[in-house]
Amino acid sequence: MITRLLTSLAASIAFFASPALADTLVDNVQGITINADGKVERFVALWVDDDGRIAQVLKRGDEKPVTDYRYDGQGRYLIPGLIDSHLHVMGIGFGALTLDLSDTNSLEEAQAKIAEYAAANPGRRWILGRGWNQEKWGLGRFPTAEELDAVVADRPVWLERVDSHAGWANSAAMRLAGVNSSSVSPTGGRIERVAGGNAPSGIFVDNAAQLVQAAVPAPRPEDRDLALSKAQDILLSFGITAAADMGTTIEDWQSFRRAGDGGWLKMRIMSYAAGVEAMELIGGPGPSPWLYDDKLRLNGVKLYLDGALGSRGAWLKEPYADDPGNTGLPLQTSTQLRNLMSRAALDKFQLAIHAIGDAANGEVLNAINDMSDTYDGDRRWRIEHAQVVDMVDIGKFADHGIIASMQPVHQISDRVMAEARLDPARLEGAYAWRTILEIGAPLAFGSDAPVESPDPFANIAAAISRTGPDGQPFGGWRPKDAVSREQALAGFTSAGAYAGFAEGRFGRLAKGERADFVFIDRDPMLSSPESIRETQVLGTWVGGIEVYSAD
Amino acid sequence: MITRLLTSLAASIAFFASPALADTLVDNVQGITINADGKVERFVALWVDDDGRIAQVLKRGDEKPVTDYRYDGQGRYLIPGLIDSHLHVMGIGFGALTLDLSDTNSLEEAQAKIAEYAAANPGRRWILGRGWNQEKWGLGRFPTAEELDAVVADRPVWLERVDSHAGWANSAAMRLAGVNSSSVSPTGGRIERVAGGNAPSGIFVDNAAQLVQAAVPAPRPEDRDLALSKAQDILLSFGITAAADMGTTIEDWQSFRRAGDGGWLKMRIMSYAAGVEAMELIGGPGPSPWLYDDKLRLNGVKLYLDGALGSRGAWLKEPYADDPGNTGLPLQTSTQLRNLMSRAALDKFQLAIHAIGDAANGEVLNAINDMSDTYDGDRRWRIEHAQVVDMVDIGKFADHGIIASMQPVHQISDRVMAEARLDPARLEGAYAWRTILEIGAPLAFGSDAPVESPDPFANIAAAISRTGPDGQPFGGWRPKDAVSREQALAGFTSAGAYAGFAEGRFGRLAKGERADFVFIDRDPMLSSPESIRETQVLGTWVGGIEVYSAD
Repeated sequence: MITRLLTSLAASIAFFASPALADTLVDNVQGITINADGKVERFVALWVDDDGRIAQVLKRGDEKPVTDYRYDGQGRYLIPGLIDSHLHVMGIGFGALTLDLSDTNSLEEAQAKIAEYAAANPGRRWILGRGWNQEKWGLGRFPTAEELDAVVADRPVWLERVDSHAGWANSAAMRLAGVNSSSVSPTGGRIERVAGGNAPSGIFVDNAAQLVQAAVPAPRPEDRDLALSKAQDILLSFGITAAADMGTTIEDWQSFRRAGDGGWLKMRIMSYAAGVEAMELIGGPGPSPWLYDDKLRLNGVKLYLDGALGSRGAWLKEPYADDPGNTGLPLQTSTQLRNLMSRAALDKFQLAIHAIGDAANGEVLNAINDMSDTYDGDRRWRIEHAQVVDMVDIGKFADHGIIASMQPVHQISDRVMAEARLDPARLEGAYAWRTILEIGAPLAFGSDAPVESPDPFANIAAAISRTGPDGQPFGGWRPKDAVSREQALAGFTSAGAYAGFAEGRFGRLAKGERADFVFIDRDPMLSSPESIRETQVLGTWVGGIEVYSAD
Repeated sequence: MITRLLTSLAASIAFFASPALADTLVDNVQGITINADGKVERFVALWVDDDGRIAQVLKRGDEKPVTDYRYDGQGRYLIPGLIDSHLHVMGIGFGALTLDLSDTNSLEEAQAKIAEYAAANPGRRWILGRGWNQEKWGLGRFPTAEELDAVVADRPVWLERVDSHAGWANSAAMRLAGVNSSSVSPTGGRIERVAGGNAPSGIFVDNAAQLVQAAVPAPRPEDRDLALSKAQDILLSFGITAAADMGTTIEDWQSFRRAGDGGWLKMRIMSYAAGVEAMELIGGPGPSPWLYDDKLRLNGVKLYLDGALGSRGAWLKEPYADDPGNTGLPLQTSTQLRNLMSRAALDKFQLAIHAIGDAANGEVLNAINDMSDTYDGDRRWRIEHAQVVDMVDIGKFADHGIIASMQPVHQISDRVMAEARLDPARLEGAYAWRTILEIGAPLAFGSDAPVESPDPFANIAAAISRTGPDGQPFGGWRPKDAVSREQALAGFTSAGAYAGFAEGRFGRLAKGERADFVFIDRDPMLSSPESIRETQVLGTWVGGIEVYSAD
């Protein structure tokens, strides 16, 4: 009691009158959170202390405290701040600042959009963009440099595929990059060639993309800060208050720190460095501390073992059904992978390893098993995507509590393509969310934005229905692997916190946790998948402060 | 009054009882500071507020406030925390962790010390060290690889010269670095050759040192943190509470930040990045904010225009008196220098440019003059060392308020060598401290540690006497350029703050500034140079907290 009196007294005196010394009752809400047992709990108000942490979750009938401020929730639904366990913060920001082709449905539509963008941006030395998908266009092949030259010939054009595993260049870009008929595909990458010839076609898969990327002028720090600011605004507008940034470079990290130092870091970022060199440079002898009131931490490192299904870069045990000579590419040898894992694990960095194909997943699961004796303790090994897992391997997730970090919307986007790439036997362990939960492994959800939209409600709808926005396929694709509403919300909240060593800090609305929450216009526990997909975010709060409002 | 009451109340309640909410009277001292007019002011007590800032400087007769704590200074002398305007923080730390040859007086003594160190450290893959000086040894030539092989042949040895402008390798180090008779000296560097042959002699001057340095395993982050911790302890023990770090790499910066994040950054560091790439990576779109309660800031960038006199790398207008064919090396062209300066100045980074020879100083002064119209405002251009300035150029320091950042002890160490390298006419503007003050330019002092000892009292004694510890030469070397005690103390306090854009934050003991101060055992305003050199530091405080005690 005396501390509360003192707080009120202090707040009334200019010397102490910083907003940090005021507490707030967020009252009159229809509150929903996931408790420690994975069950939904409902409440009517949140008492947020002067530090932005939750002092009390009030149920109906609880006595309400006297606070400095009261915020009237007007009966709206309130859920925990959503945690996206796999996205690319700067990619989202740069994507928003460059040409976005993700909504194009044909090559012609893309060409028109590119031409329009180039005309509207005469000052840009390079036309940069991303989001194209020849599968969605129904093209049946990759597009070509000539098809880009036809709309922009005066300047270099470089456009990343939707999955970031391939890039499309025009002739000017290839000229500037010094790529020609005598260029050789690098290890872990492939220069596509024109039919019946040696000339590059304009498409550069996986590591080959670096050949062109290296010629693109690096963004200036101002551009990076603008991209970060833009990314934050986008994510907060979707109700995402925390995210795992997969592949943080030192430049990205410096931008995050500038935001923290300058007081404009509004969301929480759990970083996974882009490789072990970046990891060591950013984190030094180990993961960073939690910085800026739990807004930033370097948790560990992101490694890659293979590419993606769309570009046939995913590493499979057997050849692609639609490309019998090809099993995809392992990006490193078994020894290389284990060396990198050791280097990170030795210094207690968390490992998040990209594995899409069943060969890649099997190899990472085996590698983790091999390492677990040496690097024991609470390691929380993560496999990112875990898209296609051989059913003989899937149980290994549970052996060492390996976190499957998966993206529900990928299943929706990939369904037709996956069925073309893989025969039905190999789809048994594909996008196998519920199977993974049922064997007892942790499952965290994310969007992989900007590969997909960051919209968490589209992901929750996909997770519980395995149908797309068009309602297809009826009854859901392989519906045994749909999860419950509780599991889906946990995947985007408490499980995301656990996957990032953040449990107890944020992810649930419970006493002592940061007051990160989102006002929405409907009850996700009672709405249909179609309705969930239409959810409107009304306001987003981080650490007890409103950082986004739809008004 | 009410705020003070509340503070006391708060301090008595556990909820608020953090040490940050207590104020202190540092009482019963013989206090000395330099006021805004450059005059000495004396005081008897300091009232330090709960934020570590000075609330009041109490003169004899002032009424003493009631504070939470009282610290009895026991009548000791108290001066402002000393600011070293030019040193290398990590170099000091690594120097302390590796072999130090700076106290050796002959080649034989050095060889004995190297052999002893190698025997005592059988586990070190490389024997690394620094501090040798063939001039001090009276060798009359550089030492050779064979002379190192004679004491360590089983492992690589790599030893930096005292001025960091040359390195000495044994044969194993050259073998690992792949340096041999067919190696070519890089631009801005020189591979010394054996007499009458092409084989490298073992000495690598300026940029050529990179040929061997590149083969040395990089220190691990743990090593860097240890070096930083060691450097802080050394500097604080000398009463240095703030320093300009000349040539901060991203790895250094990350170590500084780990110290800040982890609460073990005890001193203040004003960083000047090691080149424009490091500048952009560390600072991004401009200088960083002051971080960690004014303990860290990236101010700008360190550039080099030439080398040092000792290794005849300093760039002179006329040839060296003792090497008639050689005028030293400009490390970049006039255009390159201006391009780098523009790139930094455009984003408001402060420029600190190394210039030792008269040609280098003339060129930097002209370049600053050329830039000053475009990049106006409060720029505080700095020339580091400004050792030998042509008297026809020296007035240009005043034209744009260019800061001469100079190291008094260099004059002592260099005297004999400088007289050999330069004829008397060129010594007129050499180490010309008082001349620079008299023309109205700002003068900041530093040690260039680890090139010299960081001891500020040795520097103050040199600054006021221009004699060495041996009292030579009698009456001082070119004594017209000795400065007053007030000017010397200002050079290590208020002028150092100004040179780093820190005035008002620290550097003087005045209301509102950070309470950085040093207890010493004598009065520097009344002691002889010989006595000042013997000054004992009794305790060092930063931000109102004791961070070093001689007890």
